Amino acid sequence: MTINFDGGLVPVIVQDATTREVLMLAYANDAALERTRETGYAHYYSRSRQKIWKKGEESGHVQRVVRILTDCDEDTILYQVEQQGAACHTGHMSCFYRTIDGEEISGRVFDPEKVYANKGE
Amino acid sequence: MTINFDGGLVPVIVQDATTREVLMLAYANDAALERTRETGYAHYYSRSRQKIWKKGEESGHVQRVVRILTDCDEDTILYQVEQQGAACHTGHMSCFYRTIDGEEISGRVFDPEKVYANKGE
Repeated sequence: MTINFDGGLVPVIVQDATTREVLMLAYANDAALERTRETGYAHYYSRSRQKIWKKGEESGHVQRVVRILTDCDEDTILYQVEQQGAACHTGHMSCFYRTIDGEEISGRVFDPEKVYANKGE
Repeated sequence: MTINFDGGLVPVIVQDATTREVLMLAYANDAALERTRETGYAHYYSRSRQKIWKKGEESGHVQRVVRILTDCDEDTILYQVEQQGAACHTGHMSCFYRTIDGEEISGRVFDPEKVYANKGE
């Protein structure tokens, strides 16, 4: 497949390959996708830091990529992963741990202060 | 929760509430999200047509929204839905019906030529 990067970034949905829980959304450029395919571990492009990053670089919460899917328009990617630890820097398994009304639907699985030397990833 | 629309659009991941299959990714502005919450049916903002659209308007393949989640940064939304028919205009249940190497992982559940008078939604 040819992904329509259009010179920029595409959104990457990340889903647990076993439980099918949606874990997070991030962005990738061509090089981040390439590095993911080469290494078998999820890489993204950070818009704020303007560089490629490997998920779990600091926390150890890496994502082994089991399968990469693309959508009908070839402008969105889905990584199906085995998540080490948890996906969210807040300590929750998934970044989607709250309803739009602010209700928490799942608790923390790790204490972010013990995992991150700096704030967030 | 306050979603960080930043005057623009946020990505919306759409997941089947029962099977947890990721069905599609679309975009919403404030008004599309509001209409979704008011009606209980998924609405999005079309970047190409520059207007709000209701999923299934033409095809009848509407999405009843069971739950709306937001991520840690409050700049991505997850709709958990009951999908009527199928999500993809190609006739597949999910827009993510191919691997990045082009292998189809699921067949069609409807014939798009019989469902759409015009091409796509």
